[in-house]
This record gives sequence, structure tokens and C-alpha cells, in this order.
Amino acid sequence: MNGELMAAEVAEQPEMFARILRDGAAAIATVAAAVRARSPRFVLLVARGTSDHAALYTKYLIETRLGLPAGLVSPSAVTVYGGRAAMRDVLMIAVSQSGGSPDLLEPVVRARESGAITVAVTNAPGSPLAAAAEYHLDVCAGPERAVTATKSYTAELLTLYLFIEALHGAESGADVRALPMHATAVLARQEEVAALAIRYRFAEQLVVTSRGYNYATAREIALKLMETSYLVAHAFSGADLLHGPLAMIDRGFPIVAVVPHGVGGGAMLPVLDQLRKRNADTFILGDAAAVSLGTIGFVLPDTVPEILTPLIAILPMQQFAWHLARLRGGDPDQPRGLQKVTETW
Amino acid sequence: MNGELMAAEVAEQPEMFARILRDGAAAIATVAAAVRARSPRFVLLVARGTSDHAALYTKYLIETRLGLPAGLVSPSAVTVYGGRAAMRDVLMIAVSQSGGSPDLLEPVVRARESGAITVAVTNAPGSPLAAAAEYHLDVCAGPERAVTATKSYTAELLTLYLFIEALHGAESGADVRALPMHATAVLARQEEVAALAIRYRFAEQLVVTSRGYNYATAREIALKLMETSYLVAHAFSGADLLHGPLAMIDRGFPIVAVVPHGVGGGAMLPVLDQLRKRNADTFILGDAAAVSLGTIGFVLPDTVPEILTPLIAILPMQQFAWHLARLRGGDPDQPRGLQKVTETW
Repeated sequence: MNGELMAAEVAEQPEMFARILRDGAAAIATVAAAVRARSPRFVLLVARGTSDHAALYTKYLIETRLGLPAGLVSPSAVTVYGGRAAMRDVLMIAVSQSGGSPDLLEPVVRARESGAITVAVTNAPGSPLAAAAEYHLDVCAGPERAVTATKSYTAELLTLYLFIEALHGAESGADVRALPMHATAVLARQEEVAALAIRYRFAEQLVVTSRGYNYATAREIALKLMETSYLVAHAFSGADLLHGPLAMIDRGFPIVAVVPHGVGGGAMLPVLDQLRKRNADTFILGDAAAVSLGTIGFVLPDTVPEILTPLIAILPMQQFAWHLARLRGGDPDQPRGLQKVTETW
Repeated sequence: MNGELMAAEVAEQPEMFARILRDGAAAIATVAAAVRARSPRFVLLVARGTSDHAALYTKYLIETRLGLPAGLVSPSAVTVYGGRAAMRDVLMIAVSQSGGSPDLLEPVVRARESGAITVAVTNAPGSPLAAAAEYHLDVCAGPERAVTATKSYTAELLTLYLFIEALHGAESGADVRALPMHATAVLARQEEVAALAIRYRFAEQLVVTSRGYNYATAREIALKLMETSYLVAHAFSGADLLHGPLAMIDRGFPIVAVVPHGVGGGAMLPVLDQLRKRNADTFILGDAAAVSLGTIGFVLPDTVPEILTPLIAILPMQQFAWHLARLRGGDPDQPRGLQKVTETW
């Protein structure tokens, strides 16, 4: 293998988006109606790795769209310390491609015993996690064979977006039907991405930053680069970057900033300003105005509704990670020392 | 200045612990009794930078000791997207040394308007944040003049520990009175720390890892190293490290692992095993058994109750960051481009 699996799965995403929108919406609506009838007042999310970034996006959706307080669970509070929380009125959402890691299973089992409404969001309807939760949402990504998660991430994002919108009950007004078209258009620009990746052949470290909905994108970009290209990639929310880590950024320090149009991107402008003052080397993934502020960039279509930009912004960076891995002599399908299902406890 | 401020504030911590235990407990008990009477069912924490690490420790305490679901707030959900959540039965705890950053103030103001019980934990009783919250806990660190937070962090940890124990109502059995003695003993080993720091004179990057209560310690160590020594330091929970980032760890990759005695440290042993297989270079901060598994190490006293180890484990690493900053030609009191109060929004 030399990255064929990952490349194929990256390329499948437009078709997958269309399939989820066509076939998945009914099941999502059914689960959402059942959950909504029970009026949860607080939401907990539990996930690891790439799925944790889908959970982070969902946390923002819950806070901004549902107006419910939400938190990410620390599995070790349950699995290591045996903590048990009172879970009445709590909706717990567990997100996992494989549904196989023990440290997600135990918090869901305990939460359900303690009265929580539990929903598992997986790509594996037959998994222990899907069985443990009261409700299950299949993200319908199809089998993911590459060790590096790509299509399962965007399938989780779309499924969770649709689920939160269905829980909310009112449309955000975002045109979700155009997603497959946008995904196709962005993925068609692979040559552009491959040319950008060359520049990072010898980079040893990198900081990725964004805010709001796309903080999840920044974290996922960093993880893809660590997994496939062995680049020490560190993700910060733009605000957190200014609280200390900024000190390590000096002339030429490589930064990837996700700055799409909309208020999330707008909140990144003061961060870009600080980075410019330090002469950092900035690769900006965003609208044309933001890209013009960077050293190099990739222009994202500004017709994607802001709330859906995480589903599109990650796509070129999956290709970027794939190209960079190969440029650096690696096989994107076989990250050293990783397995498809990571069991932690 | 050449680090005198930071050195003095690091050295003050044993005395400060004694002062908080002697003078702070009554005020903490009063606020805890008032909050307890209102029976909060969910807890949200909001903080940035170093204080965010104190919030992370507190999140584990709430999950393991109080048995309440807890989450860390994303300030931008409120400040950027204008999200408003229903806050009945919610306890919101905001943690900030200065009480001055606008992106903490707004979530507290909105939460209070929406029915939350709000507690500000600051080192600045006259700050806007202290005024905005219904209750205020003064961490009594005394004026912190160094840009790099040290004593305010441990003061926040101790104040929040005492607050959560008071909310719980039953003693954890941990002997908190011995803290000043343990802090004095650890800080007296500065020569040992200075010798360890020399080895990292030319390190360009580093990963810091731990689990459970000391995940906060790992994050705070990484931040101190980024702020003072401009080292690209990346913190992962031990479990998250295994979900992908492990791929970038190869022979000689510098790791700092916090592995104290107790179940949190025990959960790190499989992580150390993976790191050993990859021939990483490991600096272990932990009990003698854990230290024997690393390349180098610093033995922490195993008489500190596990739940209190974060208050002791960070101390030698504050000294380490100070020494390394000077070895690398920096002034620990003047991290480039940082100010004492970071205003983000």
C-alpha cells in the first residue's frame, strides 16, 4: 500500500455526504424526536482522537444552536477514578468510528445506569458502544480501512449537525444540500494542495489555529499531520494562543490558520495581526480576504454557510496530509505504530 | 530584571499554601455553604491560559468527588456567536488571576442573567469578574508581578480543592495540612532541577503527558515551557497520545511524563510502555518506581495524597522552566510579546 486506501476514502466524501443527506435524515429525525421529548437540560460528549474533534464541533453547535450547557467528558474520571455522576436530565453523546474503545464504553454504561439519555454515534452499528447506548446513530461512512480517519470524521460532523438541527426543531437556514457540490469542487483542487505541501517537506513543527466552529478543524488538521507526516503539530484556539504560547512564535514559525468567512473567522483577525507582527509564516485556509493576509493560502468557497465550513475546510487538509506524508517518505495508510482501533482505558 | 520576580514568586508558594489554609478556609466554607444550599446539578468552568489548567483539575474533582456532570465553557460560543444557554441548576465557576479578560466576563454575566449560580475565583477582589459573579473566592496569592503565572496557579488549585471539598461536605481524608511542608521540601531541591534543565538547552520540541488529576499538570508544564523557554511543548492526556499523535514519537523524542503514585499514575504505565518501545527519551516526574522506568527523572514525595499531587508536581517544573529560559538566553520575567493581563474576546 502507498496511501491508496486513504486517498480513496478522502475522495468518497462528496458521494458520502449525498448518501447521508438522502438516506440518513429519517433515522436521525426519529432519534432526535425521542430525545427531544425527554427535554434534556445538559449535554455531555465523550470521544477520543478524531471523533473528539467531531464532539468539539458538536459542543459549539449545542451551545450556540440549542442553548444548552455542554461539556466534554474526561473518560478517566470514570475509568480510572470510578467517578459516578447524577445524570438525570443529561443527554450523553458518545462519538466513535469503531465503537470499540473501552474508555468510551464505560462512561456510557455508567451514565445510562445513572439516568442519562444516551446516544452513540458510530460507523459500526454492531459495536459494543452502539449496543450500550439507548439510541444509536449510524454515520453511514461505509467501511473505513485506512488507519487515518478521514471520511468517518466528516460523516460524524454531518450526522451530528443534522441531529442537533433536528433536536433544535427550527432550521438554521444553512443550505446543507449544496454540501456534496462544495466538497466535489474543493477536492478537485488537489494539484493546488500538492504544490502547497512541498513547502513543508522539512518543517519540524507547526501550529494550527482557529476559533469557534473551526477550532475542531484546527485540531483535526494537527492530528492528521502528526499521524501521517510525523510533524509536531500543535493546535490552539486563537484566544488560547494569545494566552502564553504566542511567546514561542518568532520569525518564520510555520502557522496554519483556519479563517473562513463569518464571525468565527472575524474573531481570528486580531490573532492574524499578532502573528504578522512576529513575522510568522502563515498558511491561511479561508476566504479570499483572509488569505490575502497570509504568506500563502487556500481560498475556501464563501458560499458555504459558516456553520457548515468545518465539513469543507478539512477536505483539502486531508489531501495536504496525504501529500506531505508521501513527500516525507511515509505511507499514509500505515502510520508507524498505530492501529485502526485504539484501545485505551 | 533577570527572572527575579518569577523566582521569588515560585519560592513563596509554601508560605502561601500555609496562608490559604489558615486564612482562606472560612471564606471558602461560607461560599460553599451558600452554593450547596442551592443544590446545583451541573457545573460549568470558564477560564483561559494557566487558570484553564486549574479549571481542568477542578473538573476532575467535580466528576470524581462531587459526582456532578461538568464541562469547560468555550467562551467564543457566547462572545463570538452570541449563544445563550438555559442555566437553571447550573453552577458556573470562572477562574482568572487578574479577573480582567473580557471573554470570561461575558459568559459569567450571561450565565447569571440566565439563572446560573456564579462563582468567580480570582486573585483580584476588585476586578470586573469578581464583581460580575454572585460569589467571589479570593485565592490570596498576593500580587503576582511576573508575567508568567506560578503562585497564582497553585493558589487557584488549593482554593478550588478546598471549595470542592467544602461543597462535598465529607472529608477526602487527604491531609492538606502537610502541603506547605511538602512544597518546601520539593522546592529545596532546586540544584537537582537546574542540572536536569541543562539537558534541554537545544531541544526544539517536547511532549508532556499525564492522566487524570495531573493532566492539568502536564498542560501547565507545557505552557510554562512555551512561555519562558520558547520550546514547542505539546501536552496530551496519555490516552489521547495513543490515539494518533504517538506516530510522531520516534527514537530520542523528548517526553516529560507526570506519573505520581496512585491510580492516575498507574493508568500511565501502558503509555510509558509504548514510549519505551519507541525509544523515546523520557523525563519522568513521579514516584520512585515510575522514575526507574524513564531515561531521567525527578522523584516526587509519595506521601502526598494523590488528589493533591498536582499542587506539588508543578513546583519543580516551574523552577525547570525558569532555569531553561535562562540557559536559552531568555529572561523568565519578560517573555517576548506577552503582557500580564491578556485580553481576548
